[in-house]
Amino acid sequence: MALDGTRLKDALEAIAAEMATVEERGKPADYIPELARVSAGHFALCVATEDGRLFSCGDADTAFSIQSVSKVFTLTLALGLAGDALWKRVGREPSGSAFNSIVQLEYEHGRPRNPFINAGAIAVTDIILGNHQPREALGEILRFLRALSGDDTISIDEAVALSEKQTGYRNFALANYMRAYGIITHPVDLVLGVYFHHCAIAMTAQQLAQAGSFLAFGGRDPLSGFRVVSPDRARRINALMLTCGHYDGSGEFAYRVGLPAKSGVGGGILCIVPGVASIAAWSPGLNDVGNSRLGTLALERLAKTMDWNIFGIRS
Amino acid sequence: MALDGTRLKDALEAIAAEMATVEERGKPADYIPELARVSAGHFALCVATEDGRLFSCGDADTAFSIQSVSKVFTLTLALGLAGDALWKRVGREPSGSAFNSIVQLEYEHGRPRNPFINAGAIAVTDIILGNHQPREALGEILRFLRALSGDDTISIDEAVALSEKQTGYRNFALANYMRAYGIITHPVDLVLGVYFHHCAIAMTAQQLAQAGSFLAFGGRDPLSGFRVVSPDRARRINALMLTCGHYDGSGEFAYRVGLPAKSGVGGGILCIVPGVASIAAWSPGLNDVGNSRLGTLALERLAKTMDWNIFGIRS
Amino acid sequence: MALDGTRLKDALEAIAAEMATVEERGKPADYIPELARVSAGHFALCVATEDGRLFSCGDADTAFSIQSVSKVFTLTLALGLAGDALWKRVGREPSGSAFNSIVQLEYEHGRPRNPFINAGAIAVTDIILGNHQPREALGEILRFLRALSGDDTISIDEAVALSEKQTGYRNFALANYMRAYGIITHPVDLVLGVYFHHCAIAMTAQQLAQAGSFLAFGGRDPLSGFRVVSPDRARRINALMLTCGHYDGSGEFAYRVGLPAKSGVGGGILCIVPGVASIAAWSPGLNDVGNSRLGTLALERLAKTMDWNIFGIRS
Amino acid sequence: MALDGTRLKDALEAIAAEMATVEERGKPADYIPELARVSAGHFALCVATEDGRLFSCGDADTAFSIQSVSKVFTLTLALGLAGDALWKRVGREPSGSAFNSIVQLEYEHGRPRNPFINAGAIAVTDIILGNHQPREALGEILRFLRALSGDDTISIDEAVALSEKQTGYRNFALANYMRAYGIITHPVDLVLGVYFHHCAIAMTAQQLAQAGSFLAFGGRDPLSGFRVVSPDRARRINALMLTCGHYDGSGEFAYRVGLPAKSGVGGGILCIVPGVASIAAWSPGLNDVGNSRLGTLALERLAKTMDWNIFGIRS
Repeated sequence: MALDGTRLKDALEAIAAEMATVEERGKPADYIPELARVSAGHFALCVATEDGRLFSCGDADTAFSIQSVSKVFTLTLALGLAGDALWKRVGREPSGSAFNSIVQLEYEHGRPRNPFINAGAIAVTDIILGNHQPREALGEILRFLRALSGDDTISIDEAVALSEKQTGYRNFALANYMRAYGIITHPVDLVLGVYFHHCAIAMTAQQLAQAGSFLAFGGRDPLSGFRVVSPDRARRINALMLTCGHYDGSGEFAYRVGLPAKSGVGGGILCIVPGVASIAAWSPGLNDVGNSRLGTLALERLAKTMDWNIFGIRS
Repeated sequence: MALDGTRLKDALEAIAAEMATVEERGKPADYIPELARVSAGHFALCVATEDGRLFSCGDADTAFSIQSVSKVFTLTLALGLAGDALWKRVGREPSGSAFNSIVQLEYEHGRPRNPFINAGAIAVTDIILGNHQPREALGEILRFLRALSGDDTISIDEAVALSEKQTGYRNFALANYMRAYGIITHPVDLVLGVYFHHCAIAMTAQQLAQAGSFLAFGGRDPLSGFRVVSPDRARRINALMLTCGHYDGSGEFAYRVGLPAKSGVGGGILCIVPGVASIAAWSPGLNDVGNSRLGTLALERLAKTMDWNIFGIRS
Repeated sequence: MALDGTRLKDALEAIAAEMATVEERGKPADYIPELARVSAGHFALCVATEDGRLFSCGDADTAFSIQSVSKVFTLTLALGLAGDALWKRVGREPSGSAFNSIVQLEYEHGRPRNPFINAGAIAVTDIILGNHQPREALGEILRFLRALSGDDTISIDEAVALSEKQTGYRNFALANYMRAYGIITHPVDLVLGVYFHHCAIAMTAQQLAQAGSFLAFGGRDPLSGFRVVSPDRARRINALMLTCGHYDGSGEFAYRVGLPAKSGVGGGILCIVPGVASIAAWSPGLNDVGNSRLGTLALERLAKTMDWNIFGIRS
Repeated sequence: MALDGTRLKDALEAIAAEMATVEERGKPADYIPELARVSAGHFALCVATEDGRLFSCGDADTAFSIQSVSKVFTLTLALGLAGDALWKRVGREPSGSAFNSIVQLEYEHGRPRNPFINAGAIAVTDIILGNHQPREALGEILRFLRALSGDDTISIDEAVALSEKQTGYRNFALANYMRAYGIITHPVDLVLGVYFHHCAIAMTAQQLAQAGSFLAFGGRDPLSGFRVVSPDRARRINALMLTCGHYDGSGEFAYRVGLPAKSGVGGGILCIVPGVASIAAWSPGLNDVGNSRLGTLALERLAKTMDWNIFGIRS
């Protein structure tokens, strides 16, 4: 699919204009003060294309907490370290339940359903930890994101990380539960230390769109030409994003938008148009299943306008 | 994507040869004698392309019980009748649980998670029943499939339908449960009568591949040019097949094959390559989550060889 | 424990007076018109003692639908027919969940947790059905209750039975589910026909207190001297009433009242003081777990005043 | 009920003789080395009567890890501290599920079903912690048990406590989960520190029978005459032991033995015959729901021989 730059620019402008008028913007995550403090008024959309151009609208150079969007990158790293052995510890099926995943951990002997729910991402972090100190593991994650986005200033919001640690009792419960089953092998405190920190990475929509580009272009970073993962692995990560990327709203996103994507409670969404573009959307207000309300809406509009949908042609 | 006929023929031959040598073929569904009696030795694969050609290998003109594959067509019909009001009664999320769906019916007030699990498909059948007599509703479903496949001989295997009725206690439990919540509005016996009969429709792989073509080509039957559904609706049905089409193996199928598909316990799978082809696979032996073992394997091989995958390019 | 008749009479009068002033009486069951129509103003309490005396207050000779209280008597009958083989089909543990039991049927392979939840009682009815016609099985249940209460006029409220049949979808779901696992062996319609009818038996508090006497006096009907069950079996039925007799309010009843008892959604409660008395309470308004609000309160008052409690002495 | 000393002695001798011949003794808890190391050959039974006599057989003066039996005493203490306000945090219903309680914590917003499952007992420990340091809280529990048993040598097995801490991931999961809901108010580490230590208290059967006596005699210690709790509270603790004292085997114990009792995975059981005696049984081998196999059997035999059963008379 060739990309029509003018049409894209017009689309972004129209979407930004529409989003500015939406009154029901959802509510920012309120479980930690640092996230609750962010204004629901923010909106950003950025499209990174194969030739390295970035098409943006809104607050595309304002950094936000990427939260669960980081799970796409930690999964990528962990697959590089452990290969398919990773799947012994984590499943590949949608959690598919309005109920939080600790129920399924119990029914399924401590093995999380997929790497994008909290439990699964914690298990993935345990793999990255490997023989490293937490500081080193975290450094590796950060270096990876900086390299992908071509920006060495990307950093961790320590206040967010600290807040998550102080209030993350459910994550402590999940991690301890998995430790009881041997899914987590390191001390819970260390694993969660790394987990809370990589969730607290702050990026702009431009950086995020850039960082996700390898997933759109067969595993190869279109700018540097560097192969991040094999084409097969890129496809498979995209498949996981589609089936599991929006918690219990994954089916709905696939139905409405028709593209692989991963959301975070900071209001960010990374969305992939295979062969065409990598997109980052951001708006802090969340819908009732915890995904960015305006981010989802903006992606639905953009996909429709640009006719980007992996499930079929316009005919 | 242009279709290379020679490459496709070679691929089919190679797959048929490989499948003939596979020893672990899974076990045919054994809960009704009519399905258990079918030999696990059968294998068929058929690809229908936009220009109306059928590329086949194996027992592609042997009829089999399509079972849950019929749910794609009843959903299509019901959406035509009820439009988006259908989604008030049925969800769009993966069931995502190794446990059977009656648990989720209870937790979610009788509303099935999606139209491809039994409960959801029974609710869809209730919609098709509308003001009709069961015989008329069934006639409509049959006419629809005959028209799509261009074959008026397609019919119902009454022995299978009868057997399902006599042993379908779990389906009676599901339907009664939904009736308690008003999700089913007709008498349970009538709804299940139609449901058991449409699951008992017998088709060949060639007929099935043909019948599913409209989903590959933007909602339009490529042979007759008849518009079955809008392009948007075709995409959305494909999205539902991808996220929910293989019960609790949907994530795995998306990961391994990367194409929308719907399986049935008769061993059939309808698989869509958007813009390129509609594929039917059949082999009666099932894997541990109830999907055709060789059917899945054959589709994985074919997709890989032909580089058909909605999640990305080869790069 | 010797029974002080004067103290008991005074206690009943005081309780009746107190109950007349209670404003929050709960709401009668509303899922069938016949039960909803009964006034929440009714209240009755009747104590049957070893010497055959009945001490009553309130509407003790007004018949009401005994509903699940019938399960004590059908269990007694079925144990007489099947002996301990009954426990192969039904468990002896509290259901202990706010969630309806079909979830547990699924997790526990169709075997209900105890004979006093709906699923368990339906399985018990299946045992009573045995080789009989439904009419005969029902006749046997009715004869049993008439003999125990010494009153041949006890009968079934056909309007209630019919209503339950017409709206009892959840019970149809439970029965079909158990049939799928072979816990139910007869056609679901026949089993539920008997079940709905024995739940629809109408009795007065006086008749019910009399009918339950054998459980208070070692399995022997104190009036006729007839041995209904062995002392051990009487104890065990009482134990089941204590742990499972009030659905998910069983622990609370044991905690507050301290006596074995079985409630029904018609507002009736049969309560046993081992060695001392059999009590029937009735008031149609229910609390939030489906047990008679005033019935429970009156039994708590009576037990306290008379110092009836199986869990300890006054000291 | 008067107590026939000769009959009791004969009964204990006969039971000890029978237990010595039982080959299937169950397996000691193996999740921590300290418990696994105890020989399944041990057996003890001790009956404490109102006049202060102790009737024993077997290894009645060998100390064992009381584990969950301690929960009866911590509940008693916590009720003394918090009164009925305790029930805002903990329920009074059987957990009634073969599945571990973290599932129910999720469904019921972090509130454990009763004080005798792990989650509930941890919440009770949080109450005892109050404004104290862990060391003080633990001292209070220890002083309470020493006073009740009249033996100042009772102490904590530090090796067991340490082992539990090192392997108690599920308990850490439960505690963190409850902390997320505010059911636990202190730091999880502190609460579990106290919890693991009070579970690791070591007592002999003689000490345990003595310590439980107040529950048999209306809340009053029969030896010292000291009132530990009110008669009503003693009854209610007994009621909780009956409905919830054996995890998912509580209904079975009530059915077979007919007495309130609390078991621990160390193989100990405290069993109350209201008005008559307090009994401690011990044998380390467990049945499939985690209760002492021989302990249960011995209590069943003793209750039958002595005709001790709260659910009825012999007739």
